[in-house]
Amino acid sequence: MAETLVENEQQPAQEYDYHPMWKSLGMNVEDHDMLLGAVGQMYGDMFLTQSNRPKATSYLDFVASNIHSGRIREMLDKKESGEATKIVGSFCLYVPEEVVTAAGGIAVSLCSGADWATDKVEEHLPRNTCPLIKSFTGFKLGHVCPYIESSDLVVGENTCDGKKKAYEYFSTLANMYIVDIPNVHNDATVEVWKGEVKKLAHKIEEFCGQPITAESLAEAIRIANDKRRALQRLSATRAADPAPISGLDSLLTVQAALMDDPVRLTGAVNDMAAECEARVAVGEGVVPKGTKRILYTGTPMAVPNWKFFNIIEKAGGIVVGEESCTGSRYYRDLVDESGTTVDQMLDAIAERYFKISCAVFTPNDQRMADIVNMARDLHADGIIDCSLQFCTLYETEAFTVEKAAEEAGIPFMHVTTDYANEDAGQLTTRVEAFLETI
Amino acid sequence: MAETLVENEQQPAQEYDYHPMWKSLGMNVEDHDMLLGAVGQMYGDMFLTQSNRPKATSYLDFVASNIHSGRIREMLDKKESGEATKIVGSFCLYVPEEVVTAAGGIAVSLCSGADWATDKVEEHLPRNTCPLIKSFTGFKLGHVCPYIESSDLVVGENTCDGKKKAYEYFSTLANMYIVDIPNVHNDATVEVWKGEVKKLAHKIEEFCGQPITAESLAEAIRIANDKRRALQRLSATRAADPAPISGLDSLLTVQAALMDDPVRLTGAVNDMAAECEARVAVGEGVVPKGTKRILYTGTPMAVPNWKFFNIIEKAGGIVVGEESCTGSRYYRDLVDESGTTVDQMLDAIAERYFKISCAVFTPNDQRMADIVNMARDLHADGIIDCSLQFCTLYETEAFTVEKAAEEAGIPFMHVTTDYANEDAGQLTTRVEAFLETI
Ligand code: SF4
Ligand code: SF4
Ligand code: SF4
Ligand code: SF4
Repeated sequence: MAETLVENEQQPAQEYDYHPMWKSLGMNVEDHDMLLGAVGQMYGDMFLTQSNRPKATSYLDFVASNIHSGRIREMLDKKESGEATKIVGSFCLYVPEEVVTAAGGIAVSLCSGADWATDKVEEHLPRNTCPLIKSFTGFKLGHVCPYIESSDLVVGENTCDGKKKAYEYFSTLANMYIVDIPNVHNDATVEVWKGEVKKLAHKIEEFCGQPITAESLAEAIRIANDKRRALQRLSATRAADPAPISGLDSLLTVQAALMDDPVRLTGAVNDMAAECEARVAVGEGVVPKGTKRILYTGTPMAVPNWKFFNIIEKAGGIVVGEESCTGSRYYRDLVDESGTTVDQMLDAIAERYFKISCAVFTPNDQRMADIVNMARDLHADGIIDCSLQFCTLYETEAFTVEKAAEEAGIPFMHVTTDYANEDAGQLTTRVEAFLETI
Repeated sequence: MAETLVENEQQPAQEYDYHPMWKSLGMNVEDHDMLLGAVGQMYGDMFLTQSNRPKATSYLDFVASNIHSGRIREMLDKKESGEATKIVGSFCLYVPEEVVTAAGGIAVSLCSGADWATDKVEEHLPRNTCPLIKSFTGFKLGHVCPYIESSDLVVGENTCDGKKKAYEYFSTLANMYIVDIPNVHNDATVEVWKGEVKKLAHKIEEFCGQPITAESLAEAIRIANDKRRALQRLSATRAADPAPISGLDSLLTVQAALMDDPVRLTGAVNDMAAECEARVAVGEGVVPKGTKRILYTGTPMAVPNWKFFNIIEKAGGIVVGEESCTGSRYYRDLVDESGTTVDQMLDAIAERYFKISCAVFTPNDQRMADIVNMARDLHADGIIDCSLQFCTLYETEAFTVEKAAEEAGIPFMHVTTDYANEDAGQLTTRVEAFLETI
């Protein structure tokens, strides 16, 4: 698999030439080749250098090598054959994939984890914008993201100031619909949010040209819940010492879950979980027993932003959990499956998503409780809270997280980083120092 | 008046010793003396060096010299005598002063325009926080703001990410109540907002211990509307060339309106307006006819943040209007006075406030229209859009403002600044260059 990926980058046309497909999507194929080459190189350096990975992580290598090629082909083929109606992209965990699936659509995450066309981006957005927002804007302006280019509709959300205002510009470049997210969690706002989910469902079925029925929605809920159950199962194995799987591979598993075919992915995650359970039973780990265990919390880490996990684990630590949107927030809560009408099910979906403890909410006490509980359940030796640069929400909430960690008596470190590599040396030094003290 | 101010700073005890009052509020009087001294110095340098000011601006000198002393004494005396119930502070134009006034309270703005105790602030808030937020946090931590210290209740609002999350910390230091502001302007959110205004009114009357009656609310609406009418009248005179009053004095007038006794202030503003009308009639101005005319737009300028207006006017321009919360947004729209029940009046208040085109809203098309219309009505030669550093909302919206100005064919410049003086030279150079091209 590793070879496939690297070969794909260097001779992308070997097995199947995806260039015509990328061209047909309006992409800049030369720049895209460069991007894929760089990501392939990074993948090799970070993932394939890990020793003693569970064998079932070969699925992750498959996903990584197919992410911009085979997976896109598959989605487009499904649309062509009529098996799928539309491709609907989104940038935030608050956009319910069930609603898209139920209308015959394919839901994909567009969260972007690499700098691209930054100069062009800064003609439209402030320099002081977080790297995630700059990334998706740069991917669009540079025409290098096949997910953005193949999305028939992009569903944005009013969360942080940066995204909320950047969407005003992005919507001049892509077909967008915006979902409104409240600032506070209470009985009144959950009702408003239910209304937003229903408006979204209406928009999606209209746009996909396929009604959301009780059957299709129940099935969509089951598909997403099955995915979540598999991820929960895998995550539970990481409480063991030694941990059976790395943080890098676990992060990539969630990243894959945001983009891959849900049913296939669920099978693969269950395979990984089974292998990890077997490892735990015999005390086998991906690192030696006693390796310092870290709970990651903070901003999401979008593909291919593996930098900080790689730093932690190359420095000799092991990430055993992620309180993050590319982590537990994606799979911890299931949608209640007892609803029988579309309306009941949409309410259940809204209720489930409303539990996501994004820093956009004020106050965000549930997140503090989650962090402390996860650190305890997963036997973490320390918590590392990470914010992307210029992310006011997570940067400010970091002080509250620190207080919660202190009160729980758990060692804590906060870092701010971006997608560039300039701070890698400094971050490594800080992480090493932290690992030594815990 | 000028002397009074300067003397006050240097020998604050001359006429009346306010130190016991400041002490009784728990303030750090030594640090506060320093702050007052610095502000007095700045006031002298910026305001008293202006030539040919309207005589009625002596009221502004009075306000400036009394702002931390006589005005606070007056508010405390009113509370003591039972004439006022409570002092209620707020940080945003979205908090309706009418509701406070109607419950016998005194509404004051706490928006803060100077750096203070920044080191201490950065123990609790990110370095990348906008200066306004750092300022009110620093004023609180340093105990140097008599408005914050005398406020019995502080009403915050969920607007930008920075304030929303900073209030979580601020509320550990002060008695706070938070109003929730929507992200979008539509028929549904205006209803939610009306609900928020009613919840606030209920909270305020409970807190003040005095019911809001139809009489008291109608009176409060009239008081605030009279203030707005006076400010509108003054503002209208600035369409003349030569402009009868400077941007600095006009800015200070609105800043004063946010803190001073409303009835007294309204009288003074009407005096200023009358004098300015007389000036316009005879073609008299504060600057020569033909002086380059600037429409300011952007983030609010809280007392004592006069830096940028001073730079523009010392560079030879004249600010003829402010599309800003310390400008037209404060006085342009009146509350409809036809309501007869408390409920109707609260709805009318909510509707009026909902027109404030803060960059927190998406999209914010009304602001673009306002900017272009104001520039035309006030015969501005150019628009300068200013954001406080790290203000994602206004920084991002600046690109939209630029587009609107371009489309209208009006010269445009954007600047980002803070409360420090380091960039003063560079800003002056940029403003001079801009004034030359227009
Ligand atoms: S961190 Fe917040 S804004 Fe970002 S994906 Fe998660 S829920 Fe959405
Ligand atoms: S990292 Fe922060 S600023 Fe960036 S998109 Fe997410 S919430 Fe917004
Ligand atoms: S700019 Fe927005 S947040 Fe600031 S005072 Fe005005 S309405 Fe409030
Ligand atoms: S200037 Fe911007 S960041 Fe600062 S308080 Fe106002 S809206 Fe918030």
